[in-house]
Amino acid sequence: MTDDPPPNPALLPAGFVDLLPSDAEAEAAGMESLMQVFAAHGYSRVKPPLLEFEDTLLSGSGAAVAEQAFRLMDPDTRRMMALRPDITPQIARIAATRLADAPRPLRLSYTGLCVQASGGARESDRQISQAGIELIGPDTPEADAEVVALGAEALAVLGVPGVSFDLTMPPLAPALIAEVGFTPAERQALMRALDRKDAAAVAKLAGGLAPVLTELLHAAGPAERALSVLGGLVLPEPVRALSERLAATFAAIKARVPDIRLTIDPVEFRGLHYHTGVCVTVYARGQHEELGRGGRYVSNNDEPACGLTLRPEALLRAAPARAGRARVFLPVGSDPALGRRLRSEGYATVDGLAPVADSVAEARRLECDMIVAGDGVVALN
Amino acid sequence: MTDDPPPNPALLPAGFVDLLPSDAEAEAAGMESLMQVFAAHGYSRVKPPLLEFEDTLLSGSGAAVAEQAFRLMDPDTRRMMALRPDITPQIARIAATRLADAPRPLRLSYTGLCVQASGGARESDRQISQAGIELIGPDTPEADAEVVALGAEALAVLGVPGVSFDLTMPPLAPALIAEVGFTPAERQALMRALDRKDAAAVAKLAGGLAPVLTELLHAAGPAERALSVLGGLVLPEPVRALSERLAATFAAIKARVPDIRLTIDPVEFRGLHYHTGVCVTVYARGQHEELGRGGRYVSNNDEPACGLTLRPEALLRAAPARAGRARVFLPVGSDPALGRRLRSEGYATVDGLAPVADSVAEARRLECDMIVAGDGVVALN
Repeated sequence: MTDDPPPNPALLPAGFVDLLPSDAEAEAAGMESLMQVFAAHGYSRVKPPLLEFEDTLLSGSGAAVAEQAFRLMDPDTRRMMALRPDITPQIARIAATRLADAPRPLRLSYTGLCVQASGGARESDRQISQAGIELIGPDTPEADAEVVALGAEALAVLGVPGVSFDLTMPPLAPALIAEVGFTPAERQALMRALDRKDAAAVAKLAGGLAPVLTELLHAAGPAERALSVLGGLVLPEPVRALSERLAATFAAIKARVPDIRLTIDPVEFRGLHYHTGVCVTVYARGQHEELGRGGRYVSNNDEPACGLTLRPEALLRAAPARAGRARVFLPVGSDPALGRRLRSEGYATVDGLAPVADSVAEARRLECDMIVAGDGVVALN
Repeated sequence: MTDDPPPNPALLPAGFVDLLPSDAEAEAAGMESLMQVFAAHGYSRVKPPLLEFEDTLLSGSGAAVAEQAFRLMDPDTRRMMALRPDITPQIARIAATRLADAPRPLRLSYTGLCVQASGGARESDRQISQAGIELIGPDTPEADAEVVALGAEALAVLGVPGVSFDLTMPPLAPALIAEVGFTPAERQALMRALDRKDAAAVAKLAGGLAPVLTELLHAAGPAERALSVLGGLVLPEPVRALSERLAATFAAIKARVPDIRLTIDPVEFRGLHYHTGVCVTVYARGQHEELGRGGRYVSNNDEPACGLTLRPEALLRAAPARAGRARVFLPVGSDPALGRRLRSEGYATVDGLAPVADSVAEARRLECDMIVAGDGVVALN
């Protein structure tokens, strides 16, 4: 083992990357735009830490993501800590402890990095940025709608084209199936078939539910059509309540954002395991990856909550590129007041640090777009 | 051990904290202000990951902080990874690999979280924000001065009062001592005495160097006086070169920022172990903690580099509080166009989600400063 080559210094662990200038700037600017939309709607920013004790971070709603967490030992206390794989459970913790006495609805926003031991939404990423909101307290269609509407506004500010929101009601299919006396094995096989959207297997396994489940499977698509199918079915009471809540949430979203593109998949029940009501996944036309997801859940202390988490890296890939600051070269001896004026006007100034024979060539070498001339600038092209 | 109480969900590991709304917002806004100052001077943002393989992260200039790093194993490769205790070595890595062909001077900026197994600058913090710059390529007083000047400008933008920059030249005292034939044990004892600023021990241990070292110890303070003491000493050649570089850097900083407050401690040689030239520590009057530090070092591939890292948490404690957005309550049924207008004017709007009997009381309960009335707002007080 003494002949190991020296490590390649540019090699990073799978799923961890360096963002280089234009991407790093676009990601930061995009994240800041999202946070400003949230702040403008009265969402207050909180910033929980990257690490917590494993038993607090991965309990409650955090249990759903426990298997994705990196663990490490606190050398001080010898207790196990975990790097957060998701920020939402931390917000739930803060809402239930430090902000337990803050008035409800409690509107919180957050942004930060998460680390997952196995690849998350995108197979290759293990470090994931999140930017999101949580609306804690009310359990109403209007609360669900506020969260979706803010997501739509944030993505519009970023200029992401062709955004659509796919609504689901994860408890619906399990509630429907629970009404029938399946054995646990039958139930599990049916759930798996539904999860795979395998209509043939569903028809075979669902017994008396086969017509309803088949119709619901085919109803997935534009929201109005899916709701019309759902509304036409005779559903047992607990299932009908879920179906009506989905319809009411749809109506509340359309009332706030009339031109939003909404689809509904009524039997979908995947996603994080803690969701208890309407959920949403955000897509953009032509992008294979999710831009974000969220939904309703029961927070710590049994408080109703609804949240949405956007993924800035995915948004960066979906949004149009932004122009950065134009770069102006200031040769040695340029008037400092001119530099200050240019910066206040939104330029980036690049100071020459030593005299050069050819300032224009030096400006080009330094990837500047302009150079000072007199008390103004001239473009280099 | 079965009678353990349930964990207190609000308990975080020592050195990790939740930032609650006003602090989290102030920290984020302050960080963004810093990054905008850096961007306006042509510093391009890069974003290395939180984790790297231990052998790349903690080699080169990273070796100096290796003992502070948390390690964890990559389950995919079974290689050891480390959470970064400092971002500067990652910037050096990027400059020497992915940006090896970018033109020099290479100006890079970064912001992000670091994690240290033992408390860093502030005993209790183990999660530390950093926001900084690196100027890679030139080894000149003007390059040193640019970095200090940008730090001064960034702190002025934040409104931190009473900022001062303490300059040191860490190689100076070791170079002076190396000119004399001390035994390793004598040398180590003398260095320790200097480190403690123990003038009596220095006088006893320094032999023929005692007069010079004593004078230098007492010279620490306002920059002009310290430089005058240094300039009056007869120093061996390599030491004189260091002293002259310190004086030239001082002059270059004053030329860029005439009203900057500078002190010099000529025999100080602490700090991160990788510094090879002028170093700087940033303080604010009345604050015991450092606001930032930086200096000159030799980057990967033997490239000269100079950097400055500011600590947003410390800046948050030193800067005046910023006013957040004023909050306006919009009762159910308010005109959505009015909400949009208010948000575009910088207000935070807080939507009522259900009708209430007393909108003013509800607005107060939701900690709003104003409520809509007609097509405008009225203040609540």
